[in-house]
Amino acid sequence: MTLDGAIEKRMRDSFAAQGLMKTFGAHIARLAPGECEIHLPFGAHVTQHHGFVHAGALTTILDNACGLAANTLMGPDEAALTIEFKVNFLRPARGSLFIARGRVRRAGKTVHVVEGELHAEHEEDRPTALMLATMSVVSGLTLRDS
Amino acid sequence: MTLDGAIEKRMRDSFAAQGLMKTFGAHIARLAPGECEIHLPFGAHVTQHHGFVHAGALTTILDNACGLAANTLMGPDEAALTIEFKVNFLRPARGSLFIARGRVRRAGKTVHVVEGELHAEHEEDRPTALMLATMSVVSGLTLRDS
Amino acid sequence: MTLDGAIEKRMRDSFAAQGLMKTFGAHIARLAPGECEIHLPFGAHVTQHHGFVHAGALTTILDNACGLAANTLMGPDEAALTIEFKVNFLRPARGSLFIARGRVRRAGKTVHVVEGELHAEHEEDRPTALMLATMSVVSGLTLRDS
Amino acid sequence: MTLDGAIEKRMRDSFAAQGLMKTFGAHIARLAPGECEIHLPFGAHVTQHHGFVHAGALTTILDNACGLAANTLMGPDEAALTIEFKVNFLRPARGSLFIARGRVRRAGKTVHVVEGELHAEHEEDRPTALMLATMSVVSGLTLRDS
Repeated sequence: MTLDGAIEKRMRDSFAAQGLMKTFGAHIARLAPGECEIHLPFGAHVTQHHGFVHAGALTTILDNACGLAANTLMGPDEAALTIEFKVNFLRPARGSLFIARGRVRRAGKTVHVVEGELHAEHEEDRPTALMLATMSVVSGLTLRDS
Repeated sequence: MTLDGAIEKRMRDSFAAQGLMKTFGAHIARLAPGECEIHLPFGAHVTQHHGFVHAGALTTILDNACGLAANTLMGPDEAALTIEFKVNFLRPARGSLFIARGRVRRAGKTVHVVEGELHAEHEEDRPTALMLATMSVVSGLTLRDS
Repeated sequence: MTLDGAIEKRMRDSFAAQGLMKTFGAHIARLAPGECEIHLPFGAHVTQHHGFVHAGALTTILDNACGLAANTLMGPDEAALTIEFKVNFLRPARGSLFIARGRVRRAGKTVHVVEGELHAEHEEDRPTALMLATMSVVSGLTLRDS
Repeated sequence: MTLDGAIEKRMRDSFAAQGLMKTFGAHIARLAPGECEIHLPFGAHVTQHHGFVHAGALTTILDNACGLAANTLMGPDEAALTIEFKVNFLRPARGSLFIARGRVRRAGKTVHVVEGELHAEHEEDRPTALMLATMSVVSGLTLRDS
């Protein structure tokens, strides 16, 4: 199943408007109904004190991957807003490219539940981090007054 | 109770060595036994698509505040490593300065449990985000091979 | 601030209708706007394999305390439904009575965020478990079709 | 891959010693390396106020499924202890039998990360609840003094 072109354009425009994604140098690698993949290249600007990529940067692209995955299943006047998420860090984040995938497990009228999984390139079977997130469905211009 | 000078120096050096904190322009505002406060000034480089500060940036400084709070209670050869955290977003993140506080609720031999709370400046009674985090106690040079 | 009598009656009737609370022998010890306290007496019927109270039983009364705390702030045609929660276990659950408290941190139009804390009797400063929960506001007769 | 007989016996004895599992009428349906499945038959003794199975009962068997899944990968002197978990409720829990599955995603020296999934019988593609749990590895007779 492929994504409607207008929805995909809206997702990509929304991503491009995020100052933090420009700062990170992250980009959308894939969008499909209920799914999103975001890539984050390693760089000194996203490191923690041992020189590895910061857990916060990994969490940020996982949150975005989950939010955009939810967005793909919403109407033209709706947007996903993160209510909450939980993330586990499983292994050291070693690598030159990090891949975050979000996948919707339940698309409800007001709430979507999304799983996220992150791994370093060529390490698909060894996830670095797992996320379980709750997104609310809000009308496009409304900002978290739920 | 005040913090031992050597421990405080170690915490501040560790923070200063984080590339992502330089990128964000965040700094440690306070350190005390079991507690840490980190400030993040607003800027276009940390925004999401509506121009508000990105949930990922808020999460990152909350994670750091919780990790450093845990670190203050550890020995000279130990360091806190984030096992996992959960964060709820309660309100839109409006403001020019964001304040993240971590507070240890349980310091165990191998695991610390830490609460985090974030609010915009002058909005102490209206938290933007709440975190509940689990940190492992690792020997200083060991990197998440638990 | 005290709770409206009709709301309190509705909460207590709802609790009394829970088969699992009868099975546990738990009861509501306190209700106030945005707050709820539930007591669970120890017994062999709620133990894990070492003879301590089961983490699942503690989680259950924490969930109930958080849900009822949220309910106290809702209208006569609304009810709280658990979207999700996270719970940390901090210490062994030793004691003859367990006290779970829920406290609303954010009451929104569609979502409430609630903190829960559990301790054994006479151990108020040594929490056994901490919860951070998200409750949805649903009209009274609607059952999770959000 | 099948489970070592001595380990399986230890798991089943541990489960049988849980008073709460007797109270619930739950049983282990399957054990394999890194995996566990637990069944909970519906009954009035595990209901919430609308007559559906209580979220706390579902959470309890998910926690057990995750803990036992972790236990299958531990040594004869080790046991899994729940550090924390997060659970999302996706749909109303309608049915006469509930099936909880735990699956280890990362088995470390001191911490295991486990995913749990619960559905009503014949509803495998429509999960009722999802869990993401952190288990610590403790020596068999030590009770949460981590």
